[in-house]
Amino acid sequence: MNSPIQSHTSRSDEEDFSAEYPRHKHPAIRVVMMPRDTNALGTIFGGVILSEIDLAAAIEAHRYHSGRIATVAMDTIEFKRPVFVGDLVSFFTETTRVGTTSVTVKVSVWAQRRFGSHVRVPVTEASVTMVAVGEDGQKMPLERREPVDID
Amino acid sequence: MNSPIQSHTSRSDEEDFSAEYPRHKHPAIRVVMMPRDTNALGTIFGGVILSEIDLAAAIEAHRYHSGRIATVAMDTIEFKRPVFVGDLVSFFTETTRVGTTSVTVKVSVWAQRRFGSHVRVPVTEASVTMVAVGEDGQKMPLERREPVDID
Amino acid sequence: MNSPIQSHTSRSDEEDFSAEYPRHKHPAIRVVMMPRDTNALGTIFGGVILSEIDLAAAIEAHRYHSGRIATVAMDTIEFKRPVFVGDLVSFFTETTRVGTTSVTVKVSVWAQRRFGSHVRVPVTEASVTMVAVGEDGQKMPLERREPVDID
Amino acid sequence: MNSPIQSHTSRSDEEDFSAEYPRHKHPAIRVVMMPRDTNALGTIFGGVILSEIDLAAAIEAHRYHSGRIATVAMDTIEFKRPVFVGDLVSFFTETTRVGTTSVTVKVSVWAQRRFGSHVRVPVTEASVTMVAVGEDGQKMPLERREPVDID
Amino acid sequence: MNSPIQSHTSRSDEEDFSAEYPRHKHPAIRVVMMPRDTNALGTIFGGVILSEIDLAAAIEAHRYHSGRIATVAMDTIEFKRPVFVGDLVSFFTETTRVGTTSVTVKVSVWAQRRFGSHVRVPVTEASVTMVAVGEDGQKMPLERREPVDID
Amino acid sequence: MNSPIQSHTSRSDEEDFSAEYPRHKHPAIRVVMMPRDTNALGTIFGGVILSEIDLAAAIEAHRYHSGRIATVAMDTIEFKRPVFVGDLVSFFTETTRVGTTSVTVKVSVWAQRRFGSHVRVPVTEASVTMVAVGEDGQKMPLERREPVDID
Repeated sequence: MNSPIQSHTSRSDEEDFSAEYPRHKHPAIRVVMMPRDTNALGTIFGGVILSEIDLAAAIEAHRYHSGRIATVAMDTIEFKRPVFVGDLVSFFTETTRVGTTSVTVKVSVWAQRRFGSHVRVPVTEASVTMVAVGEDGQKMPLERREPVDID
Repeated sequence: MNSPIQSHTSRSDEEDFSAEYPRHKHPAIRVVMMPRDTNALGTIFGGVILSEIDLAAAIEAHRYHSGRIATVAMDTIEFKRPVFVGDLVSFFTETTRVGTTSVTVKVSVWAQRRFGSHVRVPVTEASVTMVAVGEDGQKMPLERREPVDID
Repeated sequence: MNSPIQSHTSRSDEEDFSAEYPRHKHPAIRVVMMPRDTNALGTIFGGVILSEIDLAAAIEAHRYHSGRIATVAMDTIEFKRPVFVGDLVSFFTETTRVGTTSVTVKVSVWAQRRFGSHVRVPVTEASVTMVAVGEDGQKMPLERREPVDID
Repeated sequence: MNSPIQSHTSRSDEEDFSAEYPRHKHPAIRVVMMPRDTNALGTIFGGVILSEIDLAAAIEAHRYHSGRIATVAMDTIEFKRPVFVGDLVSFFTETTRVGTTSVTVKVSVWAQRRFGSHVRVPVTEASVTMVAVGEDGQKMPLERREPVDID
Repeated sequence: MNSPIQSHTSRSDEEDFSAEYPRHKHPAIRVVMMPRDTNALGTIFGGVILSEIDLAAAIEAHRYHSGRIATVAMDTIEFKRPVFVGDLVSFFTETTRVGTTSVTVKVSVWAQRRFGSHVRVPVTEASVTMVAVGEDGQKMPLERREPVDID
Repeated sequence: MNSPIQSHTSRSDEEDFSAEYPRHKHPAIRVVMMPRDTNALGTIFGGVILSEIDLAAAIEAHRYHSGRIATVAMDTIEFKRPVFVGDLVSFFTETTRVGTTSVTVKVSVWAQRRFGSHVRVPVTEASVTMVAVGEDGQKMPLERREPVDID
């Protein structure tokens, strides 16, 4: 029984990446991984990463809408590297589409290896779609207000 | 800041579903939702559901392989209904493909409304791909042993 | 300081059991044990098992009553085997008595050893009595409705 | 789905008790109940109380033995009163029997109602049997050393 | 990434202390440390200790006031010894000042090493100031009632 | 029993602050507050904030040293505003002193009110001193390497 977010290839942390660390951006969420976040193999449990992706997407969506928001879909997600206890994990967001009732958010997840390592590795990327909903759970138009900064 | 798994449409619980509750199957995971699992809106936090999906897929994949397994991808996932505190949520699994090094698993999530309600609603479905990995995190062949039952 | 649910005898997992795995039944609850569930010895903390027993009994009792239910007693419980990180633990329930205001439920706990092992061992059994209560916490008659299936 | 430790009778907190608060004793464990400890009804989840009982019994058993200890049995337990968020809950222990390989411990649970109320109510009492075990999980003789005080 | 409450000197547990274990006092809080409370180094996470200090101070402050109380300040705090999984940690409180609207509480934290060790070491001490507040969060006079005992 | 980090004055969120939101800085930690983080009053539990302060200080200290680090002291800390469920809380760090064996870090905590509010309020500020320690817990010289950026 074990489902780490774990590299399934020989890619080492030192390997060249096409992805570039988004140094100029402010993370929507940034957390330190603790022993309570591990799976049976001792690496970080995938569900912990997926949970923070969901929260990060909501933070981004709330830039446009201050009311209730619900996740309706998450696009294909690929796990590139495992995450370890002590890693500092950052969730960067970007709006890729603002519709009448929905916002689509790309979330990029990066891990800085433990103890302040210089190494930052891409963990995964997700595209999450969220909609504005009323108290009754029905879709409603987004405010589309002037977006609040994540800073 | 809120990202419930919440219905974004007017679909009520009573509505007809094309999906059929898998009455004949044994769930890979079945849990009761508690207040500690809620988001800022008071409904169940999406990350809780995604976490159990990841674990359920691993249970299914271990039917074929008794060593280390890692999640490599999760296909597009759509959230159809919100989940509430007190709901009993079941995660049913089905193997859709067994390759040389990977297993693909479909996870169907159903909620039975709280207090032993007769109502069972589909929450979401996910397709998760997992690979066998060695201690070093490198892909390796699956055992492809005689599958162990989930019963 | 340590109180694992741990075998206190030489019984190994392979030993013959008089108890029979309830293969035909659907579990009321089924969960994977994680590192956050361990005690100081590294085995699964007894409180985690007792917590799920309490929830499983409530699921069974709600088959007969859709309102508030409270645990009033748990009979003698014996721990037969330890539970480990990665084990898949199932809680099977059976109603042993339905009274005017109370339901008595037997909960049987089985562990499937980690990584999809063929080995399923009995962990413990409990008999839990629950009563229907009103908003004020006073005992009240059970609905005794047609029992809802656990499937 | 709800299984609070909740009064199933009309006994109010103010009612006379035959039980006497063990004012002279030092608690083995004393904790404040938080919202994360609640069940679907908003009262404290029974599993939280059972978990602390298990730990309190181990503290008492370790007075006689400094090595590994395992819970083997818990006698019938009756829940007398519900516990609420903000209550201060104390677990008092008493050794009732020291055998060659086992210690039997009585745990008395009392709740002081929230905000420093003068009211202290008995919640439950349990009798827990623990044995000394070796690394292999086999029963072994207790040290039966001079008991360490709980103070 | 690691911030254990850990000794930064060569002081061993056996060393003489000027501090005296408050044997005559009843702890406001007493808890067993579990693996889920650890940091990336495997010792107990400082935040766990700080959390219980905050709760212990509130218990002491509620001796004088049964309404809402808020923490407004914590004085300089020095961590003297690390805390380990399995330790029994006690939080003793003492009121050092009762003002018109505030109470100042000294919290002394002691660890009894795991498995019922005779060794009790001082971990840290904190001075916490709390005020009575109304529903609106505004400061208000303390009741200054006859203090309820912690026993 | 309640110890929220809660305003004890009439300061409202809209009030002018002398403190300036550190818009140009990248947070060391940034998290969304959830219902499981609340105290008995329903506001965010102070221990949750203190825990993240401890982690944020360690992240900053690891900029200079990649080995083990231990918290030795936290200076007086004042809580200025309560934090609520759904708030996005950021922990900004600044090194105020690098010694031979220790690093002193100032942590500034800001809350952005829920649902992407424009309002950002200062919650508290802490000064934390950390030292480099060896495996044996003894103080040792800092690497004083070229500091790794928090970006």
